Amino acid sequence: MRIGILTGGGDCPGLNAVIRAVTKSLIQQCGAEVVGIEDGFLGLIERRVRPLGWDDVSGILATGGTILGTSNTASPFAWRDRDVSDEVARYVHDGLGLHSLVVIGGDGTMTIAQHLASVGSLSVVGVPKTIDNDIEGTERSFGFDTAVATVTDALERVQTTGQSHGRVMVVETMGRYAGWIALEAGVAGAADVILLPEIGYDVEAIAALCRERSARRRSTLICVAEGAKPVGGELTVGQRVDDASDPVRLGGVAHVLRAQLQPLVGAEVRATVLGHVQRGGSPTAFDRVLATQYGHAAAGLVRQGVSGRMVALQGGRLCDVPLHEVAGRNRLVPPDHALLQCAREIGVSFGEPG
Amino acid sequence: MRIGILTGGGDCPGLNAVIRAVTKSLIQQCGAEVVGIEDGFLGLIERRVRPLGWDDVSGILATGGTILGTSNTASPFAWRDRDVSDEVARYVHDGLGLHSLVVIGGDGTMTIAQHLASVGSLSVVGVPKTIDNDIEGTERSFGFDTAVATVTDALERVQTTGQSHGRVMVVETMGRYAGWIALEAGVAGAADVILLPEIGYDVEAIAALCRERSARRRSTLICVAEGAKPVGGELTVGQRVDDASDPVRLGGVAHVLRAQLQPLVGAEVRATVLGHVQRGGSPTAFDRVLATQYGHAAAGLVRQGVSGRMVALQGGRLCDVPLHEVAGRNRLVPPDHALLQCAREIGVSFGEPG
Amino acid sequence: MRIGILTGGGDCPGLNAVIRAVTKSLIQQCGAEVVGIEDGFLGLIERRVRPLGWDDVSGILATGGTILGTSNTASPFAWRDRDVSDEVARYVHDGLGLHSLVVIGGDGTMTIAQHLASVGSLSVVGVPKTIDNDIEGTERSFGFDTAVATVTDALERVQTTGQSHGRVMVVETMGRYAGWIALEAGVAGAADVILLPEIGYDVEAIAALCRERSARRRSTLICVAEGAKPVGGELTVGQRVDDASDPVRLGGVAHVLRAQLQPLVGAEVRATVLGHVQRGGSPTAFDRVLATQYGHAAAGLVRQGVSGRMVALQGGRLCDVPLHEVAGRNRLVPPDHALLQCAREIGVSFGEPG
Amino acid sequence: MRIGILTGGGDCPGLNAVIRAVTKSLIQQCGAEVVGIEDGFLGLIERRVRPLGWDDVSGILATGGTILGTSNTASPFAWRDRDVSDEVARYVHDGLGLHSLVVIGGDGTMTIAQHLASVGSLSVVGVPKTIDNDIEGTERSFGFDTAVATVTDALERVQTTGQSHGRVMVVETMGRYAGWIALEAGVAGAADVILLPEIGYDVEAIAALCRERSARRRSTLICVAEGAKPVGGELTVGQRVDDASDPVRLGGVAHVLRAQLQPLVGAEVRATVLGHVQRGGSPTAFDRVLATQYGHAAAGLVRQGVSGRMVALQGGRLCDVPLHEVAGRNRLVPPDHALLQCAREIGVSFGEPG
Repeated sequence: MRIGILTGGGDCPGLNAVIRAVTKSLIQQCGAEVVGIEDGFLGLIERRVRPLGWDDVSGILATGGTILGTSNTASPFAWRDRDVSDEVARYVHDGLGLHSLVVIGGDGTMTIAQHLASVGSLSVVGVPKTIDNDIEGTERSFGFDTAVATVTDALERVQTTGQSHGRVMVVETMGRYAGWIALEAGVAGAADVILLPEIGYDVEAIAALCRERSARRRSTLICVAEGAKPVGGELTVGQRVDDASDPVRLGGVAHVLRAQLQPLVGAEVRATVLGHVQRGGSPTAFDRVLATQYGHAAAGLVRQGVSGRMVALQGGRLCDVPLHEVAGRNRLVPPDHALLQCAREIGVSFGEPG
Repeated sequence: MRIGILTGGGDCPGLNAVIRAVTKSLIQQCGAEVVGIEDGFLGLIERRVRPLGWDDVSGILATGGTILGTSNTASPFAWRDRDVSDEVARYVHDGLGLHSLVVIGGDGTMTIAQHLASVGSLSVVGVPKTIDNDIEGTERSFGFDTAVATVTDALERVQTTGQSHGRVMVVETMGRYAGWIALEAGVAGAADVILLPEIGYDVEAIAALCRERSARRRSTLICVAEGAKPVGGELTVGQRVDDASDPVRLGGVAHVLRAQLQPLVGAEVRATVLGHVQRGGSPTAFDRVLATQYGHAAAGLVRQGVSGRMVALQGGRLCDVPLHEVAGRNRLVPPDHALLQCAREIGVSFGEPG
Repeated sequence: MRIGILTGGGDCPGLNAVIRAVTKSLIQQCGAEVVGIEDGFLGLIERRVRPLGWDDVSGILATGGTILGTSNTASPFAWRDRDVSDEVARYVHDGLGLHSLVVIGGDGTMTIAQHLASVGSLSVVGVPKTIDNDIEGTERSFGFDTAVATVTDALERVQTTGQSHGRVMVVETMGRYAGWIALEAGVAGAADVILLPEIGYDVEAIAALCRERSARRRSTLICVAEGAKPVGGELTVGQRVDDASDPVRLGGVAHVLRAQLQPLVGAEVRATVLGHVQRGGSPTAFDRVLATQYGHAAAGLVRQGVSGRMVALQGGRLCDVPLHEVAGRNRLVPPDHALLQCAREIGVSFGEPG
Repeated sequence: MRIGILTGGGDCPGLNAVIRAVTKSLIQQCGAEVVGIEDGFLGLIERRVRPLGWDDVSGILATGGTILGTSNTASPFAWRDRDVSDEVARYVHDGLGLHSLVVIGGDGTMTIAQHLASVGSLSVVGVPKTIDNDIEGTERSFGFDTAVATVTDALERVQTTGQSHGRVMVVETMGRYAGWIALEAGVAGAADVILLPEIGYDVEAIAALCRERSARRRSTLICVAEGAKPVGGELTVGQRVDDASDPVRLGGVAHVLRAQLQPLVGAEVRATVLGHVQRGGSPTAFDRVLATQYGHAAAGLVRQGVSGRMVALQGGRLCDVPLHEVAGRNRLVPPDHALLQCAREIGVSFGEPG
């Protein structure tokens, strides 16, 4: 039994923990041969693979990134304007002799994997990977807790500066479509205002809050997801968003907001875009455990001969869901989410019109 | 409407986050007056209370400990060999004019609170507090994630020393009756052996593993809960343990184990007892969010006029359970727990006889 | 004996540690009354001061920011287009009855303090504060170690992302005139290229290095100080730079560099501007000790009746230097600095033309 | 030119940073072949060595421990009751063809290295390694800043527990002969009492302070070096201490002190022994820079053909000192040390008789 593993899409803390758990489980439980594929689907296209033994995955639990490398864009279905999926499927089946492929990635990676499975006679098991925690079908993805911890730490640092100067501080987090990072980190980092892609914000309402706080010699800390937008541009829960021309995709809502707020408030307004630091670093203990459990569960599905399913967390328990139910959807923060309600009732503003 | 808050029992990261959320929720949602009671029930006995306003609880989210102070032992039912519960109940009702009491504490604190409620005409709402994560009725308590993070960090530090010297390193964590901290931190910290109160260990089996690893020039990292015991002394799930004469209560199983292992293995064996560092410090982002949600939920119960219930987390969702169902029970790691199974299948030993 | 303390200029980790040490030393050693002035010189202009007792400064050692508040711009010599220095000097002398003023700040704050001292009959003792470590006369300022630690941590996070994707990652640090943060954090964070204001960089040389590394499947980590410039714009050691029209002052050299590099290299290039997170948060143990020693030394100078001097660190020892020797100068990284040489000889590039 | 590197004695954060800098410097500056010797002198005795190339030492800067392994006790002069130094010297010279040996270790390792150099015709360059910062001739050793940071963090955690309960908390740090860790971490962690091997403590004086603080509802935090002793057992500066029979060597002064204090104070007294966590983990940014500079400087001495010298830091600058001046001496905290004086004058007690 030979099983391949690949990581696709953006970097995420805990990838190595998944790779380790998949590999150790398969080796220990059924003596499988495990093959690591380099740089996502690029490694299948360019035929760069390597064996993964027990010692190769020992000592990587706590390291950030992925020992296999990843790539955001390579697809066998559109490689340099060509569809090379037949060649790739043959390579996987005949060249590598793979029985199953464990794919750790987001929505895009899962979709390619499924198509590939249908081309060749390959079993595919997915492990959800999204720093933004917005994959449908699972309530918590590994790497999210680490990103929240990183952003919370940054909010605390910026908070002390804001308080010392009596400033309005705007901190931009990841979260293009879904505001989970901004919501959880905003609550954990004691933000006064949290702006999410799911809730349109009103600049004047935010400015009024800042002015009222300044009058009491209070600084204001604003935590804004990169995909947050002024009122009028709200998304609906479950609706897919992939408008690449959207300027918000380029980041920088924090700077836009700073420019909007500055003339409306007396205090100085400063903006910080956290950027890539949110994706990197060693995973938190929580994420190491979750990623290990996901990897172990994926190995279990492989052993059972299951295909076309993704491991998931629902109701606090591990389970698995069909890959096709996940594709093309984003899990957004619902308007009645308990933490939204909680935050509002302890005084956090979501920038809604007054 | 006047509501009292007290924290009882051992220190736990997130206490201040609960106090803040209870207070802010009650002030914002119903303009309540909130009263902080100092040092647990001692503050009721000695009549040391103070008002808690919005500004008193601003800026405390991230701080460890409790701004109210706590005490482990003071009970109005047995105060210096006297039952002063009637006086205390009168003070609470007539002196303080309290409508409800929010009690943040463990099993002991909850039990006293319930008795007090029955003496006076006081509503009591509980928030579960246990670093060990072993209160019945809730699957995760605040402070636990922080303790796991602290222990994981310590395991990593000790790991580098062990590897540099090729040693067997024994690290003792909290967990007198339940091994949750040792289990989660052991998995997150890549321990080779995890010893829990729930699973009797066999010294010779552990020694055999250490010898086998040493032969391959590998160090061995052992994470042992303070309540772990050799085979023969297992506890049953849900069974209450309160044998104060147990020497394990004094801590030091790590040193006992070191002494047992040293003659059986070739490598040097070293022991570290982590102790109080596990209870202190700033809560993780996860615990700040959880503690905030618990505090907010407790305030909600108070507003609804509920009494005799404790907020809880079940199936990943906030809910509440009757206090009397919680009392006198410990939530142990069940033998078929998913993480136990997962850890075993990636090669972790639980010290069971071979 | 009444002594005032104020903090001026930008936020810096360790300010509270200085305030605490000054206050405790003066109270314990000579029973002085200590007065805290709010928001830098603004507090003198607006007459906002408060007494600082032992308990007011207990528990603040580890907190970021300044309990007194600070302001960047307020000067009694140019307050809303007026010189109010005479009124302020009278207020300090007659109103507050201050004997001495301990001023914790950078070059600008020191200069104002000196002028104020000459207007009134006030003793002034300075404590150097600069996140950038570029005040003349002292080899290490408090807050610098914390900033270096924060940047090093960010470099590590970004490194894992860069390695996973095989990217060129550009991280921008503080350091408008002097590159100390970028140099030390770059070495500690294993940057491949470090760009300083003191050494003009050559884009083509950097691109060549990136290409060469990509060819060996290596990512490249570039740590760039905000004041770094292409060849031709070097500063001379000790020369003062205050060209407010310089676009680099607005930050963003990382984005400029990214745009320059992208067409020249095959790999993806990503930029992150760390911004205000570098100024905030709890000081490192090193900075707490240094800030405590500075505060204690400043109190010693006050007790000795010294005026017009700043505490400093030279040759690893505390000393003091005349304030007028410090004014109007920046301590730059000299071309023959030992750490520059060290970094070069272990393979770090400073972006110099080939 | 072939150069060997070995690490001896206890683990210390920064060892890998030194190994990396030595190796990269020698390869880049003179194309040397570098050989890593495993497990200290044991690797010479058992002939376990391996080549160290550029890629072998890339990516290890931030990792704790030593990739070469270390051993505390192996000496070619007393190996299983035999002197095998002649064989080892021949192996080094003829077998390995080493020109020089870079030895990273403490006093014991240096002494063996020097003897070995005199037996064979080997050049030896030393890099001082001591977590305790007590090697003569250098004012700061790598790893010390990390240990201080770890202890400071632990003190803060314990502080919150102490304050919540109004307890006396005793935290034991490393430092058998010299109290540098306890002194710096005690100041950085806001300890109320710091006990050093260099200053005999008086239990009654400490108890009186605790009682006085308890009366004002204050907890007391005591930071005690493992080698601290009651009055009467002081060491003299520079005097060598190597009495292996000393019970204090077994650790546990914290528990002794707890037992002594408990009957004398009203509050609960709790003790924590930090142990091995102080030696492990990733080095701080400061230590990475220092260790890199030491490694680079050692490579410089090797290139210059120097032998019998150790790199050192004096007056804040790198230099080198003769190995024989270092041997057999401990650098203790002198009675007039500036930080001692500073700590006293901000209210820290050193437990001296009243």
